[in-house]
Amino acid sequence: MINKLCIIGVGLIGGSLARALKQAEHVGHIIGCGRNAEHLERAAGLGVVDSYDTDITTAVSDADVIVLAMPVGSMNDVFAKIDPVVKDTVVITDVGSVKGNVVRAAQQNLVNRLDMFVPGHPIAGTEKSGVEASFAELYHGQRIILTPLENTDPNATRVITDMWHAAGAEVSALSVEHHDEVLAATSHLPHALAYTLVDTLAHMHERREIFQFAAGGFKDFTRIASSDPQMWHDICLANKDALLDMLHRYNDDLKHLTDAIEKGDSEFILNMFNRAKSARDQNC
Amino acid sequence: MINKLCIIGVGLIGGSLARALKQAEHVGHIIGCGRNAEHLERAAGLGVVDSYDTDITTAVSDADVIVLAMPVGSMNDVFAKIDPVVKDTVVITDVGSVKGNVVRAAQQNLVNRLDMFVPGHPIAGTEKSGVEASFAELYHGQRIILTPLENTDPNATRVITDMWHAAGAEVSALSVEHHDEVLAATSHLPHALAYTLVDTLAHMHERREIFQFAAGGFKDFTRIASSDPQMWHDICLANKDALLDMLHRYNDDLKHLTDAIEKGDSEFILNMFNRAKSARDQNC
Repeated sequence: MINKLCIIGVGLIGGSLARALKQAEHVGHIIGCGRNAEHLERAAGLGVVDSYDTDITTAVSDADVIVLAMPVGSMNDVFAKIDPVVKDTVVITDVGSVKGNVVRAAQQNLVNRLDMFVPGHPIAGTEKSGVEASFAELYHGQRIILTPLENTDPNATRVITDMWHAAGAEVSALSVEHHDEVLAATSHLPHALAYTLVDTLAHMHERREIFQFAAGGFKDFTRIASSDPQMWHDICLANKDALLDMLHRYNDDLKHLTDAIEKGDSEFILNMFNRAKSARDQNC
Repeated sequence: MINKLCIIGVGLIGGSLARALKQAEHVGHIIGCGRNAEHLERAAGLGVVDSYDTDITTAVSDADVIVLAMPVGSMNDVFAKIDPVVKDTVVITDVGSVKGNVVRAAQQNLVNRLDMFVPGHPIAGTEKSGVEASFAELYHGQRIILTPLENTDPNATRVITDMWHAAGAEVSALSVEHHDEVLAATSHLPHALAYTLVDTLAHMHERREIFQFAAGGFKDFTRIASSDPQMWHDICLANKDALLDMLHRYNDDLKHLTDAIEKGDSEFILNMFNRAKSARDQNC
C-alpha cells in the first residue's frame, strides 16, 4: 500500500498504472505532474489522478513513491529538480524503455538518494499514447523488468515490486546492460524497422495505391510505426550503442538475404525462412 | 453459379474459397487436386471439397472453372499438364501473390487457351497454412486484384469476378507490372524484413531471454514470419526484380536512419518518425 503516489507524465503508461493501483486499492492519493495543465485537468476529469500540479517541486514534496513516466529525454532535468525537495524516505522508480541512460542520469543528478531509485521498465504498451488511451488492465500478466543497482536499498526494490504486483504484472530482474541489449533486439530495432518501412513506402509516387492494397499482415507489421515519434526518438538516442549494434547485425543479415534473392540461392532463402518460422513458432 | 469447380492446392487460400462458395451456394461440385492424397482426404473429411483426385489430368478434365492455389513455383508444370486435357469452355484463374511470373508461365504453357486465363490475387490470408486453417469468411470485405491480359476473354473475367463476389470479396483490376510493384512494397518486402528480424535474433546467444522479454509489438511485427517458408521462397524469387528494387530502397533509408542515430541527428530522426506515423495513421 502506497500512501501518496506522484506520477510525473500521466500518459498511456503512467495513466494505466494509476488506474490499476486505484482499482487494486493499493494507493491512498495520486498526484499527477506534467508541463501541460490542460492535459492534467483531463487526467483528473477521467479520475485517473486525484489532484495535479504543474510545478514539479511542490508535486513531489510529500510523495512516498514517485514514478517517472515522461519520455526518457527529460530524465536529467527531472532528477535534478526533485533531488533536493523530496522526503528522505521517498522511493523513486521510472518506466523508461532504456535503462543505461536513465541510470547515468540518476547517478549524476539524484546525488542524495541514489539508493532509493529502482530503475524499471514495464514491457507493455500499445501504439496509442495519451491518458485517454490508458486502461487499468494494461499490465495484467505483462512483465516488468527492474534493474536495481548494487547499492539500491532492498526495501525500495520491494516497494516497487509490490506496486507492480498490485497492478497485475510479473516482475523480473536484469542487469542494466543486459536489459538494454535485449530491448534493443526485441523492441527498439523493430520500431526503427517499422518506421523506416512506412517512410520508404510514403516516399513512393504510387503511395496512394500502395497503402490501398495493403493487407492485414502489413497493418500488423507496421502497427508500431504509429507509436509516439518523440518517445521513440528519445529511446533510439538513449540506447544508441545497443541499437546501433543490432542495426548493424540486421543490416548484414538483410544483405545476405538480398544477395541470395539476387543469385536465386533457393537453399539459403529456404533455410533462413525455415529457421525464422521455427524460432517464432516456438517462442511467441 | 459454377457447375464444376476444380481447386488445385487445397490449403488456407484454396480451402477458404471452397468453403465460401459452398456457403454462398455458388458452386455445384468441388473437386480438390494435389500431390498428397492424405491431405486431400482431410479436406474431403472436413467437407471442404466434394471429391478429390491426385491425378491432375483427370481432376481438371470436366471442370468449368479451375483455380490454381498451389505455390507459384509449380505454375509452369501445372499449366503444361492441364492445357491439352481441359474443356474448351474452361475458365482458369490463380491466386498467386506474384503475377508477372505466373503470366509468363501461362504464356509459355497454356498455349491453346491463354484467353481463358484470368490472373488473380486475393489480398487476404493469415500466417497459418493448410486446409485446417481455412474458413469461409477469409475473403469477406477483402480485396481481390485481377490482372487480365490484353487478350483475356471478358466473359472469363466476368466468371472469376462473380466467383469472388460470391465469396464476399471486392474485386479490383491492375496491370500485371503495377500489381507486382505494389505487392513487392506492401507484402513481399515486409515478409523479407520480418523473416530477417526473427532470424537475426535467433542467432544471438541470449536467444532464450530475448524472446522471453518480447512484448505485443514484437509479436505483431513478426507474425508474418510464421508464414509458409516454401510459399514465400517461391514469391521472393518469382517477384525478384520488384522485390530487389524495394530491398535497395529500404536499405538506403535504413542506412540514413542508422547514420542519423550514430550522429545524434535529432531532426532527421524526428522528421522520419513523424512522417511515418502520419502516413500509417492516415492510410491503415
